[in-house]
Amino acid sequence: MFSTEIQIRVRYAETDQMGYVYYGNYATYFEVARVESLRNLGMSYKALEESGIMLPVLEYKCKYLKPAKYDDLLRIKVVIKSIPTVRIYFEYEVYNDANELLSVADTTLVFINAKTMRPCAAPALFLSSLEKYFKHNQ
Amino acid sequence: MFSTEIQIRVRYAETDQMGYVYYGNYATYFEVARVESLRNLGMSYKALEESGIMLPVLEYKCKYLKPAKYDDLLRIKVVIKSIPTVRIYFEYEVYNDANELLSVADTTLVFINAKTMRPCAAPALFLSSLEKYFKHNQ
Amino acid sequence: MFSTEIQIRVRYAETDQMGYVYYGNYATYFEVARVESLRNLGMSYKALEESGIMLPVLEYKCKYLKPAKYDDLLRIKVVIKSIPTVRIYFEYEVYNDANELLSVADTTLVFINAKTMRPCAAPALFLSSLEKYFKHNQ
Amino acid sequence: MFSTEIQIRVRYAETDQMGYVYYGNYATYFEVARVESLRNLGMSYKALEESGIMLPVLEYKCKYLKPAKYDDLLRIKVVIKSIPTVRIYFEYEVYNDANELLSVADTTLVFINAKTMRPCAAPALFLSSLEKYFKHNQ
Repeated sequence: MFSTEIQIRVRYAETDQMGYVYYGNYATYFEVARVESLRNLGMSYKALEESGIMLPVLEYKCKYLKPAKYDDLLRIKVVIKSIPTVRIYFEYEVYNDANELLSVADTTLVFINAKTMRPCAAPALFLSSLEKYFKHNQ
Repeated sequence: MFSTEIQIRVRYAETDQMGYVYYGNYATYFEVARVESLRNLGMSYKALEESGIMLPVLEYKCKYLKPAKYDDLLRIKVVIKSIPTVRIYFEYEVYNDANELLSVADTTLVFINAKTMRPCAAPALFLSSLEKYFKHNQ
Repeated sequence: MFSTEIQIRVRYAETDQMGYVYYGNYATYFEVARVESLRNLGMSYKALEESGIMLPVLEYKCKYLKPAKYDDLLRIKVVIKSIPTVRIYFEYEVYNDANELLSVADTTLVFINAKTMRPCAAPALFLSSLEKYFKHNQ
Repeated sequence: MFSTEIQIRVRYAETDQMGYVYYGNYATYFEVARVESLRNLGMSYKALEESGIMLPVLEYKCKYLKPAKYDDLLRIKVVIKSIPTVRIYFEYEVYNDANELLSVADTTLVFINAKTMRPCAAPALFLSSLEKYFKHNQ
């Protein structure tokens, strides 16, 4: 299992007139969380795309438990529980400064070969970066 | 069952560099779809909020089957399958101009009394507007 | 001079915790206003881009006089005062339902040949669509 | 004169199908730049708002010289050239990793008393935080 944490400061633009973060803006937080997770693993999502592999989202679920508010420094825990194949599955938990759990979410993404526009296996570099996190039970 | 359809034109701002609508922007489309559904029922979400009732989203799920693209005139089918209680549940289907199903989604929202910040029953006006759509099986 | 009007309903996503439309979201309204203006002239911005011409924004100015609010049905007046050359200049006025002037803005865009990535003249079709609006003073 | 710099990483959500940061998203970057500038001065925009003072934008101008791209780590230089009165004026320059100047912008904001909804003087704390940066010419 691979797990990491990133921080995001809530922007004014992301609030709505309820005084909370608009429910649609969490998806962007999870994008940042995924990308920074990969960077922590030594991988660049940008480089992945430049190498001809896209990683669109197939499925997204989010439960909103408590609202995030303006200027909150959110802590997002990201977990990859299984070695990716053609698909990669991320789980997320969002906490505020007071360590309250605000939301839980997950996304399923698929590796796509940009030339053929068909699903493809996760790149070797990607798998080798993750490998060591899945060996502890041997 | 109550069902209606609304149309939304994809904005340039809503695309990303993959050339598709960014996965996070569908949540806004579903907000518009909900609000226009209520307007078709003779209700105003704005008036609901001004009357002291908020309707935040508790849960959101979306499956992305095919991408929506810039300038697509999307058709969004909205369905309310059961009489709301403290919660209201919406289902959505998004189609493009070629009538391809692009995504399916659902949201659970909760009626909140803005003074007490506690869940409350759906307003009587709300229920009476929906009533006739749920009588056909009697 | 070419002048037209379009309508945009303010979305909840576009408000911020001040209860107003976030100042950054007007740029999207002006994008929609430009694109719908062109459509009223019989032109498609999408087709323009597909023909290999991009139209990025070079300069944008906006004065915020009064706030736009949630669910307002905004009326945006768009004016093209001069025949475009390599650049095209749009002016905008935003009014609410009560006919109050909320903001005034302008944008300068440049026609770019997507192959060479260099500025180019406005396409002939574009100019011929606009032509008749600039002949009345002859 | 007060001057500071902040960094912002471009999100995928902020790009458009041209492959650039959408022109409307810079306004959010400048909001973050303003807020982090104030934080560097020991002030919290959130606390300002909670104390009953709002700071809406009156005027915004942006020139787009070169495009910002996905995953760019932007460096935003923020300058306050004069002691604020009822209004405060910020200037911005955006640079990419290669130290290219991408855009220049400025905003005028006004201090508003949230109770009366009328303009008011900049708070004393605000002025005293800025004071020392404007004494070097004595």
